[in-house]
Amino acid sequence: MTELLNSLSAVDIATGVADGTFTAEAVTTACLDHIASREETVGAWEFLDPERALAQARAVDAAEVKGPMAGVPVGVKDIIDTHDMPTGMGSPIYDGHQPAADASCVAQMRAAGAVILGKTVTCEFAGLTPRKTSNPHDPTRTPGGSSSGSAAAVADQMVPVAFGTQTGGSVLRPSSYCGIIGYKPSFDTFSLTGVYPAAESLDTLGLHARSLDDIELMSAAMLRRPFTPVTDIKKPPVVGFCKTSMWDAALPETHDALEAAAAAMQAAGAMVRDFELPEEFDWLGELRGMINGWERADVMADEWARNRDALSAQMQGTIQGGLDTPYRDYVDAMHLMEACRARTTQSFEGCDVLLTPAVDGEAPVGLAETGSPRFQALWTMLHTPSITLPTHKGPNGLPVGIQLVAPYRADRSLLGIARWTLEACK
Amino acid sequence: MTELLNSLSAVDIATGVADGTFTAEAVTTACLDHIASREETVGAWEFLDPERALAQARAVDAAEVKGPMAGVPVGVKDIIDTHDMPTGMGSPIYDGHQPAADASCVAQMRAAGAVILGKTVTCEFAGLTPRKTSNPHDPTRTPGGSSSGSAAAVADQMVPVAFGTQTGGSVLRPSSYCGIIGYKPSFDTFSLTGVYPAAESLDTLGLHARSLDDIELMSAAMLRRPFTPVTDIKKPPVVGFCKTSMWDAALPETHDALEAAAAAMQAAGAMVRDFELPEEFDWLGELRGMINGWERADVMADEWARNRDALSAQMQGTIQGGLDTPYRDYVDAMHLMEACRARTTQSFEGCDVLLTPAVDGEAPVGLAETGSPRFQALWTMLHTPSITLPTHKGPNGLPVGIQLVAPYRADRSLLGIARWTLEACK
Repeated sequence: MTELLNSLSAVDIATGVADGTFTAEAVTTACLDHIASREETVGAWEFLDPERALAQARAVDAAEVKGPMAGVPVGVKDIIDTHDMPTGMGSPIYDGHQPAADASCVAQMRAAGAVILGKTVTCEFAGLTPRKTSNPHDPTRTPGGSSSGSAAAVADQMVPVAFGTQTGGSVLRPSSYCGIIGYKPSFDTFSLTGVYPAAESLDTLGLHARSLDDIELMSAAMLRRPFTPVTDIKKPPVVGFCKTSMWDAALPETHDALEAAAAAMQAAGAMVRDFELPEEFDWLGELRGMINGWERADVMADEWARNRDALSAQMQGTIQGGLDTPYRDYVDAMHLMEACRARTTQSFEGCDVLLTPAVDGEAPVGLAETGSPRFQALWTMLHTPSITLPTHKGPNGLPVGIQLVAPYRADRSLLGIARWTLEACK
Repeated sequence: MTELLNSLSAVDIATGVADGTFTAEAVTTACLDHIASREETVGAWEFLDPERALAQARAVDAAEVKGPMAGVPVGVKDIIDTHDMPTGMGSPIYDGHQPAADASCVAQMRAAGAVILGKTVTCEFAGLTPRKTSNPHDPTRTPGGSSSGSAAAVADQMVPVAFGTQTGGSVLRPSSYCGIIGYKPSFDTFSLTGVYPAAESLDTLGLHARSLDDIELMSAAMLRRPFTPVTDIKKPPVVGFCKTSMWDAALPETHDALEAAAAAMQAAGAMVRDFELPEEFDWLGELRGMINGWERADVMADEWARNRDALSAQMQGTIQGGLDTPYRDYVDAMHLMEACRARTTQSFEGCDVLLTPAVDGEAPVGLAETGSPRFQALWTMLHTPSITLPTHKGPNGLPVGIQLVAPYRADRSLLGIARWTLEACK
């Protein structure tokens, strides 16, 4: 059985450990064995100490009371602090850096009985400059970024679940490219204490998983509510098909995936109608660069002052752009973004959910770039919860996800509709 | 002259250092000498290394180009990271803790030529449990908290300016008690990178100073805009006199101060009218405890798991309260708070500014508690910018500030009206 434990869902692992079907140690061992066989190809891990992981698993096995995530191995993006493992931010500046405390989300996982397996590869400071990770479906292609290692590790069955962060598209893009579920909750849902910022008005802690119930299991542990599986919605949803003004820039496989999903949802009983964003939303793409650059320059004031040469040329350019931006322009951009938010956070004109592209298409060839964040970033700016589902494949047989978006704080509804959508698209 | 340099404003220091009237070293020496004579009574500093401060000052003197804050000594609340000084969070858990990087605001001060003089005393994790600081006007009384050391140090002319943080009333209350200006900008104005959180939906970095121009000098350095002194407003403001539903709980000296300020502003030409908050705002006081507790439990998940016994009984109670709160109740509280925010962030029904109590009254006797945050916390929850001005005194000759509040992001207008108000109340 050991060789299969790494492919189980987090819910099945927690259940099996709690009822004694297998041990947490056996699960961790299975994950470590699988990593050993695949890591040279995938390169998902920045820090991994098998003995440290196994010690945690044995402690879970020895504990009398099993938590709701007993024995579940979790991957942690390497911009998220861990008190017992270095946290390198994907940058030589923080090589070997050892935080004093766990990030809130890490402490919450431990409290629930999870095993912090190791630290997953992040792009430099959760930005655009990638490191060593490749796409598990085709190692010549990017896994996406910046949560590259977390998405690749979950896709490759190295761990059932992992933490990512999204400021532009850093959870949903790699999840789509790697063929898993990527979930960015409503802004401010999960604590960011102990997570290195990128742009403070946009940063969101997100989750990578292979099952919706695993998303809910982690959410429940962090939001301190009892876990209940994601249940069917009572009636098919009203779906707004939101192609966005960037539709023509997407590749045919994205057009095909979205059209097919819309048709499948309609066939399953949903009312699907076109949903157009007001014209001023077209500005959000341009505003994003300005807001991101301005806030990056804030966040990284210390690194800029003391370690500028250790930053990538790309990051230096982003920060310099922020430093060159007048405050007035930044505030104007914030006002416009907030006005757009106010128009979408309460409702989508009667739609329960929006169906919208997750990515331009399949993961691009090459490891030097991580793909375009445009289709994910629009919704990050709006603070709405979004999820990508691995429903389709492109011309090369690689995953092409779809994206569902719900109004602000309608996260639980989003998960229910996502479950219904997975069934409809089967 | 040296013995007076510590009493200069930040603007005067930067000007004098830039034009060679005196050196940054002389300023820092004057501040250190004054601290040496007063610290035993006031107890404002958690960490102070004279040599480290003087080395920074000498580097400023040696630099060819002087920054806009050249040679200005700055106090930094001890929950704000400094790469070259320990950051203890007011807790034995972080005793001697050395961060890897400067907080954004600290790096921005250094880039502007300021001298990071040392770390000022904070209540435990910027909460309610005080440490050693006393009120410089009367050492038997609290300086307020949680930015106790920053407010006391500025009031005592140990530094011209200092950083504080406000989640309830931690900048404005100690500023009022100590008789200085305390400024809490609009939520999300200054970066919180490297600042230990208390409650993430409320935390705001704020400033303590003795002059409005010094507030603008620091703001300009952080917001990367040129410094221009706070100028007179073109015509007297429309003032909403907002007594709030807590008015009867305030002490007579607060009633007197506010009535006198309203009369003085009217005499100076302002239109002053009563301003009543809608009834549902009365709930905010109760919601605050719930929101604060819930988010505290998130933020401090690691300390709770690994160092619970090292937390004060008060902090343990706050966290336990948060853990006992159902997520649903927290979300309902957030919705109500956000609805209140939406009603006040855009405008105050034609008022340019609200005049409202800053505190219950003079600083209470005793050092075991830091006074009530109720009059400050209301506006922290609303994300509006607020400022306390040291306009009045109570029956014991101790300071009683007034508070001015402006709509969201009308910070610059608030400073202008504050300047006008200081004149009007002279």
